[in-house]
Amino acid sequence: MSVDKLVIVGVGLIGGSVGLAARARGAARRIVGLGRGEASLREAAAFGAIDEGTTSAAEAFDGAEVVVVGTPVTRIAIDAIEAARRSPPGALVTDAGSTKRRLVEAIEADATGRLKFVGAHPLAGSERRGVSAARADLFEGRLCVLTPTERTPADRLDRAEAFWRSLGCRTIRMDLDSHDAGLARASHLPHAVAAAVARAVPEAWLELGAGAFRDVTRVAGADEELWSGIFLENRGALAEALNEFRDEIDELRALLHRGDARAIEVWWAEARRRRERFAAFWSGESEPR
Amino acid sequence: MSVDKLVIVGVGLIGGSVGLAARARGAARRIVGLGRGEASLREAAAFGAIDEGTTSAAEAFDGAEVVVVGTPVTRIAIDAIEAARRSPPGALVTDAGSTKRRLVEAIEADATGRLKFVGAHPLAGSERRGVSAARADLFEGRLCVLTPTERTPADRLDRAEAFWRSLGCRTIRMDLDSHDAGLARASHLPHAVAAAVARAVPEAWLELGAGAFRDVTRVAGADEELWSGIFLENRGALAEALNEFRDEIDELRALLHRGDARAIEVWWAEARRRRERFAAFWSGESEPR
Repeated sequence: MSVDKLVIVGVGLIGGSVGLAARARGAARRIVGLGRGEASLREAAAFGAIDEGTTSAAEAFDGAEVVVVGTPVTRIAIDAIEAARRSPPGALVTDAGSTKRRLVEAIEADATGRLKFVGAHPLAGSERRGVSAARADLFEGRLCVLTPTERTPADRLDRAEAFWRSLGCRTIRMDLDSHDAGLARASHLPHAVAAAVARAVPEAWLELGAGAFRDVTRVAGADEELWSGIFLENRGALAEALNEFRDEIDELRALLHRGDARAIEVWWAEARRRRERFAAFWSGESEPR
Repeated sequence: MSVDKLVIVGVGLIGGSVGLAARARGAARRIVGLGRGEASLREAAAFGAIDEGTTSAAEAFDGAEVVVVGTPVTRIAIDAIEAARRSPPGALVTDAGSTKRRLVEAIEADATGRLKFVGAHPLAGSERRGVSAARADLFEGRLCVLTPTERTPADRLDRAEAFWRSLGCRTIRMDLDSHDAGLARASHLPHAVAAAVARAVPEAWLELGAGAFRDVTRVAGADEELWSGIFLENRGALAEALNEFRDEIDELRALLHRGDARAIEVWWAEARRRRERFAAFWSGESEPR
């Protein structure tokens, strides 16, 4: 798949990586960034993530073939609806948001939005932000979850699948609730826990942290607005995930209290088994469903 | 400091790294490994972690100048007491255990043990096990906590400090309870949480994990016997740390429930601040106390 005019709304870590990947893999002939600040658009162009930047939606969407909305989850619905309204009838609008139900429903409530939009979530990121953290290989071999609904036009779904694959992703399809519940466990929970661990270590003892603390808390270095937005967009599923996680912690506390070495080993071994199963997916050894 | 005969009891990840570091930095003239299996001693020698291996304690401790006990925490007291009893009067016995109070008290309850032993904990490790995961630079720039008591002979403490520094460590001194409480937060808690996160993600959703899940759960790949032992040795402090951690999770749940975006941002920003403070210690930018 090669796109004549690719428009990226919000050229940060994700949007910038879309641009770099599209360019590196010849997936687009012309890449235009739409943003609110001239300076950051110039930076994105200098970084090679876009060919040109504009703050004018009219200019950006004129003749657009594919639009990727790379703004924070709290902005995606508004930006995607604007993209749908201003782009040509044949355009595909897709996103990269970490949550899906609320924003996809908002976009599909719009008469134009639902004709062009396909929800997507490439499972790739970084605790760093901004275009300077973008990478051409960010999506290489990573899973991209597409979340079509019964309203999603079949041709746009096919094109969205082809587009994300053209950036290096493997793709799967999931319904909105499965996506949000699964991501609450596999991504939003680890983020919440990383921040909670960092907070649970008093200042005076931070010097005692080593490799485990470093890795467990890495993503707590991410941006608070971004994550506050994701948590609230997905609050129901995240609250459930936190409850189930608390049950795991409580089980460990009970085993500690009983002093049951063998039971703690069994508890730990199941964690290691799941970790190994994840690693097989991550390395590409196991195929997703 | 250069040691004539260095004895390493248990030549796994930590013991093996002691051997490799001592050799690389010229900290010992002769390095002898004491273990229970001939095959693993041969592997350690072939790997370059020891000059020779033996399963005979009498042979190993004969003429020993420094003994490092690198066995799991549940074995350290027994092994250190044996080392103290069989080594020459001038020998130093030290360890690398992740917990301190229980084992130091057990060793100091022994009349010979307390004359030679200095508790130590180099803050370095890996989720991998065995000598093949050992590295000559594992201790480079890492903190080693020494936990002298009022019974610790001053000359052995000085030598222990010099020895761990000769392997590349920075050293600090802490009392037993501060060590165990601090490590419960900065290390044992992240390990428990890593395993709990892995357990909290149902099989079917493991494929949805990405960088956050990968890093948060990395240490859940470690050995269950090792960690069951550490958890139980330090169960009081770990139980407290888990309680405080649960409070952090509960605070986030309450903020989610209220839908308070600004408060979640503040909650997250404090986590990031502590993470940055840790990173300054870890990189060597900030000096420990």
